[in-house]
Amino acid sequence: MIRNEVFSCFVFYGVLLVVKMYVIAIITGQVRLRRKAFANPEDALRHGGLQYHREDPYVERCRRAHLNDLENILPFLFLGVIYSLTGPTLSVARFHFLVFFLGRVLHSAAYLLAFRAPTRSLAYVLAQLPCVSMALQILMVVSSYA
Amino acid sequence: MIRNEVFSCFVFYGVLLVVKMYVIAIITGQVRLRRKAFANPEDALRHGGLQYHREDPYVERCRRAHLNDLENILPFLFLGVIYSLTGPTLSVARFHFLVFFLGRVLHSAAYLLAFRAPTRSLAYVLAQLPCVSMALQILMVVSSYA
Amino acid sequence: MIRNEVFSCFVFYGVLLVVKMYVIAIITGQVRLRRKAFANPEDALRHGGLQYHREDPYVERCRRAHLNDLENILPFLFLGVIYSLTGPTLSVARFHFLVFFLGRVLHSAAYLLAFRAPTRSLAYVLAQLPCVSMALQILMVVSSYA
Repeated sequence: MIRNEVFSCFVFYGVLLVVKMYVIAIITGQVRLRRKAFANPEDALRHGGLQYHREDPYVERCRRAHLNDLENILPFLFLGVIYSLTGPTLSVARFHFLVFFLGRVLHSAAYLLAFRAPTRSLAYVLAQLPCVSMALQILMVVSSYA
Repeated sequence: MIRNEVFSCFVFYGVLLVVKMYVIAIITGQVRLRRKAFANPEDALRHGGLQYHREDPYVERCRRAHLNDLENILPFLFLGVIYSLTGPTLSVARFHFLVFFLGRVLHSAAYLLAFRAPTRSLAYVLAQLPCVSMALQILMVVSSYA
Repeated sequence: MIRNEVFSCFVFYGVLLVVKMYVIAIITGQVRLRRKAFANPEDALRHGGLQYHREDPYVERCRRAHLNDLENILPFLFLGVIYSLTGPTLSVARFHFLVFFLGRVLHSAAYLLAFRAPTRSLAYVLAQLPCVSMALQILMVVSSYA
């Protein structure tokens, strides 16, 4: 499988997006430390006292960006594996993966930097297009096995 | 793999469940627009003003339904791939996938329409049964490799 | 694939971690029942009345532990499958999987039992190390397919 060109192309973008998700987790942690806003009393105690066991709007923004990644990038990882197995043309497959990748990178930037609406929503829709396309193509291949 | 009957049967239900998750995301977005309740100030500004940067009970309900899907459907996608590789009988495997699928569709309906308790909890338990069964069967196959 | 030693070793730890996530969901449900703190009015009505439609600090702690698992264990399931396909040595691969497994078990214990900081954060970092290592090794194998 790893020597299949389409599969390897998918893996390249898939792993980069996992790394992108890890980066959001690291940013969230750094923002918690700088703004002194901790979700757990034990963390607040270590960093100055229980008064820092509190919410912060920017920490919540980071968490929403992360959760949206879970909702979208994780299903992409599943769809991408299966779609790669259905034997698409490399150029068409790469286009699917690249649009999703760029859409999700723009989505994260728009979320963390609070770009004017509807930039973030458009990035979300852009990234969903290849996912819906892959889902439909997969269903056409396997629908006789229901 | 895609020509394996059990695997293709799993893929069919797995992709339908991913589409079901996407539908919940779309519903959440529509409810935010209709009820004017936005998680981000930039979205509220675009749709009438910062007073709409607020929570709404039904939006929160949609979000809980979505999060519960992440907690259950995503692990199923992993278990189902591996279970398909262990060579189960098609009829037994299809029964596992179908019970999970029906349980999760009922769960979403029960959540979004606020069915009387314990309908939603029973749907959750129903869907977990094939997952626990698949997990145990997989562990029996691979436990010598720990 | 299932007869590949590295893959089977990965599957063993991966499935155990999925079961660990299910256990956190069960604990959350039990804590909701004991503390009478329900996220949905229909659940509260069944268990004594709408006054129990409320938040509870320990329920929220369980939910944070679960969400952190989604953020970290689910990407591991993806990375582990791909990494197994890149042909690593069994002993090196097992070390990656075992460190992640132990890190995440410690993370859950530290979260649910509120260990003193920074135990939970160290467990998180420990578990991320094999993930970053796998991600880099995968990218080196497939980077020519971008």
